[in-house]
Formats: sequence, C-alpha cells, structure tokens
Amino acid sequence: MPDPQHQGDVRMRGFSRRQTVDDAVQWLNAQLAALPAEQIDLSAGAGRVLAEDVRSEVDVPGFTRGMMDGFAVRAGDTLGASPYNQLPLEIVGQSLPGQPFGGSVATGQAVRIMTGAPLPHGADAVLPVERAEIQGRMVAAQDEVPPQKHVSQVGEDIARGSLVLPAGRRLRPQDLGVLSSIGCAQLNVVRQPVVRIVVTGNELLPPGSRPEGFQIADVNSPMLAALIGRDGGRPVNPGLTPDDPDLILQAFREPADVILVSGGSSVGQEDFAPQLLTRHGQLAIHGIAMRPSSPTGMGTLDGRLVFLLPGNPVSCLCAYDFFAGRAIRVMSGLDPEWPYRRVRRPLDRKLVSVVGRVDYARVRLVEDRVEPLAISGASVLSSTTRADGFVVVPGDSEGLPPGDEVTVFLYD
Amino acid sequence: MPDPQHQGDVRMRGFSRRQTVDDAVQWLNAQLAALPAEQIDLSAGAGRVLAEDVRSEVDVPGFTRGMMDGFAVRAGDTLGASPYNQLPLEIVGQSLPGQPFGGSVATGQAVRIMTGAPLPHGADAVLPVERAEIQGRMVAAQDEVPPQKHVSQVGEDIARGSLVLPAGRRLRPQDLGVLSSIGCAQLNVVRQPVVRIVVTGNELLPPGSRPEGFQIADVNSPMLAALIGRDGGRPVNPGLTPDDPDLILQAFREPADVILVSGGSSVGQEDFAPQLLTRHGQLAIHGIAMRPSSPTGMGTLDGRLVFLLPGNPVSCLCAYDFFAGRAIRVMSGLDPEWPYRRVRRPLDRKLVSVVGRVDYARVRLVEDRVEPLAISGASVLSSTTRADGFVVVPGDSEGLPPGDEVTVFLYD
Repeated sequence: MPDPQHQGDVRMRGFSRRQTVDDAVQWLNAQLAALPAEQIDLSAGAGRVLAEDVRSEVDVPGFTRGMMDGFAVRAGDTLGASPYNQLPLEIVGQSLPGQPFGGSVATGQAVRIMTGAPLPHGADAVLPVERAEIQGRMVAAQDEVPPQKHVSQVGEDIARGSLVLPAGRRLRPQDLGVLSSIGCAQLNVVRQPVVRIVVTGNELLPPGSRPEGFQIADVNSPMLAALIGRDGGRPVNPGLTPDDPDLILQAFREPADVILVSGGSSVGQEDFAPQLLTRHGQLAIHGIAMRPSSPTGMGTLDGRLVFLLPGNPVSCLCAYDFFAGRAIRVMSGLDPEWPYRRVRRPLDRKLVSVVGRVDYARVRLVEDRVEPLAISGASVLSSTTRADGFVVVPGDSEGLPPGDEVTVFLYD
Repeated sequence: MPDPQHQGDVRMRGFSRRQTVDDAVQWLNAQLAALPAEQIDLSAGAGRVLAEDVRSEVDVPGFTRGMMDGFAVRAGDTLGASPYNQLPLEIVGQSLPGQPFGGSVATGQAVRIMTGAPLPHGADAVLPVERAEIQGRMVAAQDEVPPQKHVSQVGEDIARGSLVLPAGRRLRPQDLGVLSSIGCAQLNVVRQPVVRIVVTGNELLPPGSRPEGFQIADVNSPMLAALIGRDGGRPVNPGLTPDDPDLILQAFREPADVILVSGGSSVGQEDFAPQLLTRHGQLAIHGIAMRPSSPTGMGTLDGRLVFLLPGNPVSCLCAYDFFAGRAIRVMSGLDPEWPYRRVRRPLDRKLVSVVGRVDYARVRLVEDRVEPLAISGASVLSSTTRADGFVVVPGDSEGLPPGDEVTVFLYD
C-alpha cells in the first residue's frame, strides 16, 4: 500500500494481481441476503417484494352475489323460456351492491339485481337483463338460466385460509387489488437498502454544471442514483466529497446499507478509498480482470457493503452493473440477474477481446445484426447512450468472429 | 338514456350496439398527443421523456486528458523501449485531475499523470504506470507508446454542437450522466398526465378494509394507481366518491388531464357516469365488443379525457390496459404499446371465444405451454394474480385449438 504520509506526490503502482469476475461475484454472493421486512401502506406497495406469504383471513366474495345486471330468479322458473315462450315472473324488489333485498324470492318471483349485488335468499341464478322484458311489475324471461348461472359463490375468488401471494413476490398492480380485497391495509415487504453515493474528486463540479477550465461536472452520481432506484434501492446523494481521507471515512460511516464510492478506487496515492477500507474495514476484492472497470474494489466497513467504482463513467456503469446492482437487487428481494431485456443476434463484425479478461462491449443493433461500437475508452460515456445495449465477452474467449450469435443486453 | 329522476328503482337495458375494440382505439388515438414540456431538475430525470433534442454547447472533454495512471511523455522518447531496453526520462512534475502541470514536457522528460488529468503541453501520450519503473527523480520507460496512446482528445466523447439525445428519448441512467457532463442541470421533458381516479359505489369501503357484511373493499383504486404510475402518469386518488351524480360531476371537474371512473359505467340507472358525460361532455364510446370489459365507455368533459371502467376488477384491469393505459403512455411521451414482455408459446388446451368479440384470456405458462385459466368471471381478480399473463383472442376468431402458437403478454 502506498504510504499515505507522502501527500502532494503522485505515487503509483499497477495492480499486482487481478481477481476474476467470478471470484468477485462469489465473494459478493456470500455477503448478500434480502434485508429484513418493513411495514408499509398498501398504497406504497407497487413493485415492492413481499417478505412473507400472505394468506386470506376472509372469503372473497364474503356473500353469494350476482355477476350480471338482471333478475335474481329461481333457475327452475326459467325452464323452457325462450323469445317464443316468455315466462312471466313478478318483480318483488331489488338488490343493489351493498343494499341487499331483505326478503326471499319465491317461485314465480324475481328481484332486480345489479352486478356485484348480493343474491337474495331463494334465488339461485341471474337472468341477464338482455334476456328479460319488463312489463310493469312483471318481467318476462326469454331464456333459460341453469342454477348458479351468473352467480359468484362465497370464496370463489379467494377462499379463507388460502395462500394469496407468496413471500418473494414482486407486487404487480393487480396484486395490490387482491391484497385490498382481503383487508391488507399494511404490507410486510423487504426493506429497500439505503445506498449512499460518495463521489470524490477535487476536479469535480456538481452534476449539471457547465465544465470550466479543467473542472468537469460529476456525471456518476446522477447515473448511479437512477440505477439504484431502478434496482430497488434508496439512493442518498449528498453531493461531492473532497479528496480527503478523513472526510471520505466520515462519509463511509454515515447511515447506509451500501456505499458506492465513485473515483479514487485504484492504487494511486490519491486513491484513498481502498486504503481506508484496508485500514478500517476489509478490502476483499481490489482489481478485477475485466475491461472496463479493472480498478473496481469491494469490501466492508462497519457492517456496510462498500463498492469502489472507478471514476471513469463507463467503468462506473459497468462496475455498478456487474457488482453493486446485483447486491442492491438481492437486498431488495429482487432477482439478482440483470434487469435488461435480452436478444440473441449475429455479430456484424469481429468483437476483439483477450483470454483472461471479461469484456463489456457496447453494441448497436443495425438491421438485426450486432455492431460493436468503435470506442476508445472508458471515459466515453456517450458510447453507452449511442449503444442499444452491450455484449459480455467471457474470460475464456479471445474474441468472437463475425456471424457468431451473441446475447445482447438491451439498455432500454 | 334512463330517466335519472327515477331514483330508488333499478332500471336497466342492455347495450343496443357494442363498438369494436378497433373502433374504440381509433377514436382514442385521434384524441391523443404527448403533453407539452415541463422543466425538471436533472436529478428527477430517470425514466422521463425528452421533449426536445439536446445538443451540446460544449466539448467533452474540454481539454486533452490522460486516460491511464502513468507518465505523460513525448511518444518519440519511448521509441525502442522494452523491459530489456529501458529508456530513462526525468520526472519534472505531476498532473492531477483539476490540477494541471503548469509547464511543458520537453524531450527526455515525463510528468506523472493520473487518469482524467490534463495532458501537459509538449506531451502527446501516456506511458502506463505498469510499463514504467520509477527510480528517484527518473522513470524508466519499459515499453513504446505511439502518439495519442491513452490520451482523450477535446470533444472525443461529445463534440460541441452535436446532437446528444433526441426528443422522445426515455432517459436511461447513463443519459443522465451524459446530460450532466454537458451542463444540463435542467431538462425539458414531456409533462406527465395527472390522472384522477374516481371510484364510485356505495357498497365500497376504503382500500385494504376488511370486508364486512355486504360491504367490500375498493380494490380498483390501488390497482389503478399502480398502473398509472407504471405508464408514466401521476395518479391522484382522493378516496371513494358516493354514488351521487352531483358529487361525481364535481369530481370530474377537479384538476386532471385524464379521469378514470371505476364503477357505474354500464347502462343501469345507477350508472351515473355515462349519463353525466352525455349531458355535460361527450360520451363517444359506450359498450365494446370484448370480454371482459364490455361496459367500458370513453369520452371527454371540459377538455379531460374520461374513461368509464367497469367496477368488476378484471374488467377494470382489462379496460385500463386496452384503452386508458395507452392514453396515459402517449400523453407521457412513451410507447403506446403494452409494456408487457411477450413470448410465443403453443396452447395446451383449447381457448374458447366467439366471432365478433375480443377476448382477454388469463393464462399460465406450464412447462412452456400456455394453459388458459378456468375462471368463471370478471370478478375473480385472483385469476390475474395466479396468471403469468394473458392472451388476446381477436374479434374474427372463434377460438384457438390446442397446439396453436400464441403471443403471451407477461404480467411480470
């Protein structure tokens, strides 16, 4: 480790040994589990992940109800009814949703009923309004209805005691409806990790600042905040941290489940973050055989998972996606795998790589073929906005020839 | 139209003529356009849609910079360098990000440089630290570097005046980084429609209430709020509206771009919403040849687009997805088509339908075959939570035989 006393001097060395992407993922997986549950309002449940099985304590519906606008009848009374053999029934009342008919339907009688209204006692079917002709206090049945026709039984949707949704379910819009129907105003869901963004670099201006002289805008924190949100985390983005080890250490100790450090992740003397992890926590992984993002590091400090992401924005994005995003998704209860759509398409041109290194190659889809972007380096973030997605070239590959089918992970 | 004076009496008739789904979509498309722009902070940009092309007013980078940790050199000075022919250079200073070297690099000299730091005058390449051996005030080059090696030129990422991102772009995490790099602290994005949810029904309790007697919980408003959010709208969900035409009309006139009415959408006397649209606005579509959701309506009132969604939750979901979701997505600047992933798979069993009606059939994927769910009606919302997705059977089909490949729209 460089001697931190020698400030003002740039001291540097290369990584002595890079670990493989697989090693890094393996270390990471051993650190990961879904966070404990928290209780939230039903209205905040979209996209959240259930921390426990939900069973219903009630039947839905809780009463027998009509499923069409029409007439609650005794099915037997409609036997033989047709447009040419209209059978008259006496209308004795009505049943509205929430306002049932108080009496009972006897033979020869009918009760007007609206969709969702309780089926009156005595009735066992609903004659749809389209099959009925009203004449004063009478209604003529123009069709037969068998018993239970257009009737929804108690517990037909959800039976009391049944499993409604399993632990681990990412809640869909209709899930919220079902949870509402069984009286779940509060949900136990996996807590979302608080992810603190620590961006260092004396050359940086706040995001969106116009570059001035040799000062440039911080591009990583807005990108990281969006990625964290996508993956179910809660970004905390307090602004730039000066390149000062005491201030960086202080930032590491602010409340968080995960810390993403952008910049200063390599082995130079100004790269304080790895030194701080080594001294005050654990620097488990430092230097990974991949391109870009080789200066990525990972470790722990005071129970927080810390990712050292390179300052170069493409490297930062790639390192986030390979490692930090996975961690955030697992902690949020989500699928660890990339949330990108995948397509298989043939390569248009050669994709160059070297054995022993994983490559993250930005590509475009042109007429259903995969065109690697000719880009010079990890600093060209616009390569990721011009790209439609990326291809991962595995470590055991020297590269891929034109025509090979590859999996493209789509950014959209 | 039923006489609204006759309250307390359920008067009903069937729809005299149902319009096709295509007719309804055609009417709807004619009403739709992306909303005007609004200005937001860069930090709120994730997932929003650019309202205008963004061109850069600056070069990125704005200065020539080194792309590796190492030494800024004159490339010619390294000609012939190798581990067996180490060429010594005098270290005359350092360049850090934001803190350039003030002087110039002459022949035989080198300047320590960190990734991202300005390349000093005189230098034209960076010798990586891994290819250099430092000996006191000297560094020995162990490799040749050609001119421009590990150097990023002015404007290499983004050239001044170039189109950075086009109007209509849904902003990805890396887009926010690129926008930050060119000094866009504010973004002009398509405004998101305010979508007011108006749920009526005297039988309803607030969402998540435990059902009691003949009172049931409102399941549609939590589901609709989540759907609206998914589609780029801003849900406004003020709670239940009583089945009272004056109060419903008042709710229609609250601030909104789109109004979703759930319940009371049919042709019964208690179905006030269609009557109100007819009287105070336009009821353009009412009754659609589809199952479920046939009692769906659409129209306009005071410049708002109004959707009358059936109260039955499956019908509500289906009608939302066929019509309201499309409208919200278009107004938000998003793709009008369903945001569901699609897979093609063979049917495991017959899928029954009738000619002249579009069917929305909930299905499960079982061992890569499509199994239609046996469900009795539109009230069984749990059919949509047990389902993996749905299949649409077009209006000209009598149904589909086993083995037919169908497109499944996945709910996840």
